[in-house]
Amino acid sequence: MSIVSLMTDFGLKDGNVGVMKGVIWGICPEAQIADLSHLIAPQNIREAALILLRSAPYFPDGTVHMVVVDPGVGTARRPMAARLGAQYYVGPDNGTITMLLERVEQEGWKTEFVHLDKPECWLPDVNHVFHGRDIFAPVAAHLARGVPLCELGAPITDPLRLDLPKPERTPDGWLGEVIHIDHFGNLASNIRIEHLGESLDNKAHISVKLRDAEMRGLVNTFGERPAGELVALLGSTGNLIVSLVNGSAAARLNAKVGDPFEAILP
Amino acid sequence: MSIVSLMTDFGLKDGNVGVMKGVIWGICPEAQIADLSHLIAPQNIREAALILLRSAPYFPDGTVHMVVVDPGVGTARRPMAARLGAQYYVGPDNGTITMLLERVEQEGWKTEFVHLDKPECWLPDVNHVFHGRDIFAPVAAHLARGVPLCELGAPITDPLRLDLPKPERTPDGWLGEVIHIDHFGNLASNIRIEHLGESLDNKAHISVKLRDAEMRGLVNTFGERPAGELVALLGSTGNLIVSLVNGSAAARLNAKVGDPFEAILP
Amino acid sequence: MSIVSLMTDFGLKDGNVGVMKGVIWGICPEAQIADLSHLIAPQNIREAALILLRSAPYFPDGTVHMVVVDPGVGTARRPMAARLGAQYYVGPDNGTITMLLERVEQEGWKTEFVHLDKPECWLPDVNHVFHGRDIFAPVAAHLARGVPLCELGAPITDPLRLDLPKPERTPDGWLGEVIHIDHFGNLASNIRIEHLGESLDNKAHISVKLRDAEMRGLVNTFGERPAGELVALLGSTGNLIVSLVNGSAAARLNAKVGDPFEAILP
Repeated sequence: MSIVSLMTDFGLKDGNVGVMKGVIWGICPEAQIADLSHLIAPQNIREAALILLRSAPYFPDGTVHMVVVDPGVGTARRPMAARLGAQYYVGPDNGTITMLLERVEQEGWKTEFVHLDKPECWLPDVNHVFHGRDIFAPVAAHLARGVPLCELGAPITDPLRLDLPKPERTPDGWLGEVIHIDHFGNLASNIRIEHLGESLDNKAHISVKLRDAEMRGLVNTFGERPAGELVALLGSTGNLIVSLVNGSAAARLNAKVGDPFEAILP
Repeated sequence: MSIVSLMTDFGLKDGNVGVMKGVIWGICPEAQIADLSHLIAPQNIREAALILLRSAPYFPDGTVHMVVVDPGVGTARRPMAARLGAQYYVGPDNGTITMLLERVEQEGWKTEFVHLDKPECWLPDVNHVFHGRDIFAPVAAHLARGVPLCELGAPITDPLRLDLPKPERTPDGWLGEVIHIDHFGNLASNIRIEHLGESLDNKAHISVKLRDAEMRGLVNTFGERPAGELVALLGSTGNLIVSLVNGSAAARLNAKVGDPFEAILP
Repeated sequence: MSIVSLMTDFGLKDGNVGVMKGVIWGICPEAQIADLSHLIAPQNIREAALILLRSAPYFPDGTVHMVVVDPGVGTARRPMAARLGAQYYVGPDNGTITMLLERVEQEGWKTEFVHLDKPECWLPDVNHVFHGRDIFAPVAAHLARGVPLCELGAPITDPLRLDLPKPERTPDGWLGEVIHIDHFGNLASNIRIEHLGESLDNKAHISVKLRDAEMRGLVNTFGERPAGELVALLGSTGNLIVSLVNGSAAARLNAKVGDPFEAILP
């Protein structure tokens, strides 16, 4: 039983996601396929990288994550498959794996990358603008069936990595930025649990500044405060976030990705 | 072969639904998973309760319905699993089951409730703000694998019930309210087929009043009338509804959930 | 292992798609079910026909395509199942199959049509406004299980066909129209690779006129030109399209379905 996860910026109305499932099941009929997201902002590789990082740890060993956010489709950018620890990535070599790869390397897990250069592993006709259907879906299905990575392309060692903003140490704490706004309007920063360290023993004295608001003290969960109050807390994947209880912090603060996000430590 | 249905207010863009599928398949690899809705209005437990009521009867015995509309996540509200007739519910004990439970009790089917209090049945680390991933998904997967309900928590007998508005008898018929607006803009009321009784033998003489419109006579289906006409009829789950043929009754009437909805019987 | 694809105009918020999966799995528990689209514009049979044409070729033999875009539900329009080559269609006899049927006939593949007139193959209670759940889902599940088409209804030979606009030959090339706008804002025309013929050997000299823009030369893929430039190219299913690199051509040109779309050949 193999699992394939799909993430794209294709949206849900045109049938393109379903078509890729048809291709996968044509090669690996028993694959379980989970949609991670098809509402990545068009061409937003960074958003895909973040969601891949947050999602992969919750999938079983052997899962194949196929991600197609691919503004360079049909150009010289390489189609790629990778082993990242006990899981696989299939998609363009355009930096989508940056954040997950960093985590895997920190853990010391095995990595392996191949340039997908074997047309015999793809659909017979490859269209210039839909590699998701014609290259990546067949390759993901082969991996799901147990074909070894090395049979799908020639080894490479230099996958593209994005240059992502990191939070900076300040005299008072950390200065990061908003990196994601979720469906509820929660604002996630790139300041993580690791940055806060021992200050977390003293949560009530950590403050967060974002736009013109200051949140004093971290809460554990939304329901600790009344509806309509802004709160700061650690989100479900360890990032420091700002939320509005039963509402949208993004709308309240008129915040957007890239806004400065500051943590003041005791 | 076990079926799990998922309903949340998580939206579809952030990967959180896919992550829960990864967790479920990690424990129960053969589960068939159906998304019921992930577009429940944020924190709208009542909407989730209605869709659960309408959907459950069409799933096979043994289906596990996991519903996570959970404004109280991480607070004192109990995580719960329940047997409702031949199916299961997993999610917060916050009233989501109210309408389905009422139906199950009317039918005289067996019910059973447990407080999910056994961390050994969950993911090893439980985050305060994502019980869907860390508690409910693992528990749903255990149920799908056949683990008995009683092994997942201590029995309870007082699940929370919402106090839902019921239609009132009037001299002329029934006074209810709009309880749901669907994707097409159809307006569903809480007046049901059971309330209309023998009047249904005389459909042409039932009238419906909503906002400033009056619909005289119930039709059987939309296509009986020309495009652009407002019609009243029994919807697919037995509720009295108002529709605009090939259009949105909600937009035409500027109607919203809670608006008075009146049935005049012959 | 059988595959069922689902396409509807139901949207994703009301649970109706999930309910149909419950019905299908109740009859055929091992079916793999792929959502093609549930965001077809309400009652837009033509859009459903186009997406069915584009998607079906990528699914394995035996796939059952269930399409429910059904403004005539509950009226005299016939419920239908069809064999189209090695695949099946289940849905209303309202023209949804027009484009795929044309293609199948061009290929000389076998076709077969039945009027779904056997209530014993449906759910016990059939609602006037939700044949997707009560008639089409059970029939799709029976086909997925291997029940022969002829056991599901009486043969018919005159499925309804839509009268679809075809591009016209002009002194300079072809005059067609916009037939689809995808999630990215790409504008697809009904002028196809077959119309362009040998002119494709000379792509640099094909021009496209749409709204007030003229695109000179066809590119192979978006990334050949800088972000923000309008380009014309062959889309992933062989239609001539206009795109804005890393943007929405539909928004830039304020274009809509039905707009004239002209190809000037060398």
